[in-house]
Amino acid sequence: MQLTILGCYAATPRTFTNPTSQVLEINNRLFLIDCGEGTQVQLRKNKVKFSAINHIFISHLHGDHFYGLIGLISTFNLLSRNNPLTVYGPVGIKEIIKLQLKLSNSWPQYDLQFVELSSNQSEVIFEDDKVLVKTIPLKHRVYTNGFLFQEKTKERKLNIDKVQEYEVEKCYYQNIKNGKDITLEDGRIIANAELTFDPPSPKSYAFCSDTMYNESIIPIINEVDVLYHETTFLDSEEHLAEKTMHSTAKEAARIAKQANVKQLVLGHYSTRYDSIELFKQEAQTVFENVLLADDGAEFQF
Amino acid sequence: MQLTILGCYAATPRTFTNPTSQVLEINNRLFLIDCGEGTQVQLRKNKVKFSAINHIFISHLHGDHFYGLIGLISTFNLLSRNNPLTVYGPVGIKEIIKLQLKLSNSWPQYDLQFVELSSNQSEVIFEDDKVLVKTIPLKHRVYTNGFLFQEKTKERKLNIDKVQEYEVEKCYYQNIKNGKDITLEDGRIIANAELTFDPPSPKSYAFCSDTMYNESIIPIINEVDVLYHETTFLDSEEHLAEKTMHSTAKEAARIAKQANVKQLVLGHYSTRYDSIELFKQEAQTVFENVLLADDGAEFQF
Repeated sequence: MQLTILGCYAATPRTFTNPTSQVLEINNRLFLIDCGEGTQVQLRKNKVKFSAINHIFISHLHGDHFYGLIGLISTFNLLSRNNPLTVYGPVGIKEIIKLQLKLSNSWPQYDLQFVELSSNQSEVIFEDDKVLVKTIPLKHRVYTNGFLFQEKTKERKLNIDKVQEYEVEKCYYQNIKNGKDITLEDGRIIANAELTFDPPSPKSYAFCSDTMYNESIIPIINEVDVLYHETTFLDSEEHLAEKTMHSTAKEAARIAKQANVKQLVLGHYSTRYDSIELFKQEAQTVFENVLLADDGAEFQF
Repeated sequence: MQLTILGCYAATPRTFTNPTSQVLEINNRLFLIDCGEGTQVQLRKNKVKFSAINHIFISHLHGDHFYGLIGLISTFNLLSRNNPLTVYGPVGIKEIIKLQLKLSNSWPQYDLQFVELSSNQSEVIFEDDKVLVKTIPLKHRVYTNGFLFQEKTKERKLNIDKVQEYEVEKCYYQNIKNGKDITLEDGRIIANAELTFDPPSPKSYAFCSDTMYNESIIPIINEVDVLYHETTFLDSEEHLAEKTMHSTAKEAARIAKQANVKQLVLGHYSTRYDSIELFKQEAQTVFENVLLADDGAEFQF
């Protein structure tokens, strides 16, 4: 699982900081999450193949999370994209994009689909044989979702020595990987456990930006491998966090601790602070495993 | 008159090139012309004061000329702007911006006005005591205007030696600058020409991007000091210029020559060429005074 941070600063794009966008590669699937202004340039800088992006998830309709979307959709068209593209986001996103494409007389030649979200309950919005994506309803000034990405249980790993010992034919290998027992020609039944090793445990990633401190997400993100949680402010500006419905570093860490996640990644920093290290220091007073997102950073999990 | 190029490349923002946007300072007025994605970052890099921007002119609704507008309008709001802002652009621009502000629940606290354009005739769209702005109807794939910025005739310059010689009181100076003659206490009339020097001749700037070769603009831009004209392609790609309704360097130069402008500035380059010097070389086979726009360049005229 690899997470590439394209931008992780709050509010406005600046000379050296970018608004929210990130790329998650999980179980051989690639997802773009949020798309602030400048995302297409950040994709180029980080050498992400445009053609690999087939699903874009937009958390909410504040500009620092989606103003780069129309440009990316248009650029895909200029690059003669053929793959279908699906955009998942709050109700209204389809109207915004369609209006601009209509007025610029440049409807894409590729298949552009929208999945508009309005539920306040967690729901599955994407599923294939490798990955499942659920919403994480958040509390912010406008309708907002985080997203939980879960690898599906992987197939079991063949114990090659054992299957060769029992002279199992290759055409049965897939069944064995799927967990089936095997009946040999002499009638003996060999339990799957003897022929396979456990698969690597499926990984999970939860993206939560933007939100105020909200314990109701804990059951949804319980025990995820990696939680990205916003922390716009430090505890010293808790009053601003409350007013703007954002979180402090300490609050993000409290969510991580209660949800028993393995790793917390912080981001969505206000640019008012001298160093983002301050966020890490504050969070670690509550929860130990803290990483700091920064524009261009790549994390392997 | 100062022209700052924020971006001058065609189609999409890239790692080292920006879509169209420029700042014109003329007769102590400042205007932002077009606003591709990334313009607010380019404004910061070029140290243009956000608060000095009160009028934004959008030529047409292709993304590389206006996708940065919504972000800039939002950022103005986050920066607690108070000044009114007026946006001039094709019909539809108001709907695009209003829809996004509505859905993000962030209507600006400052006064945001739109002047929507739909005429195919040149018309005055801005006028104060210093500057007049007219549209230049262009021919492109969607409704497009260039903009002509004209200084108004400046006041005459006092000949201080002469006014002191005639002991003219200071309260009459403004009348003299405005071209009035003076009657002295002894009844003598002193002609204004004796008391003043000619003012510097008023400057003019014409912005023409995007457009196919279009001789009908020549009467409008006749004898301007500076003509910015797009040149997306070289003559070798004339077929693409024709197909996409853009201009070649040679065509831009032919317009400059026929309109008898003093200075041609080229921009809106396709990124397919190895060097933008090629555009200058080609244009100079037709018209001598050619400058190349480039992102971050500042020109004094």
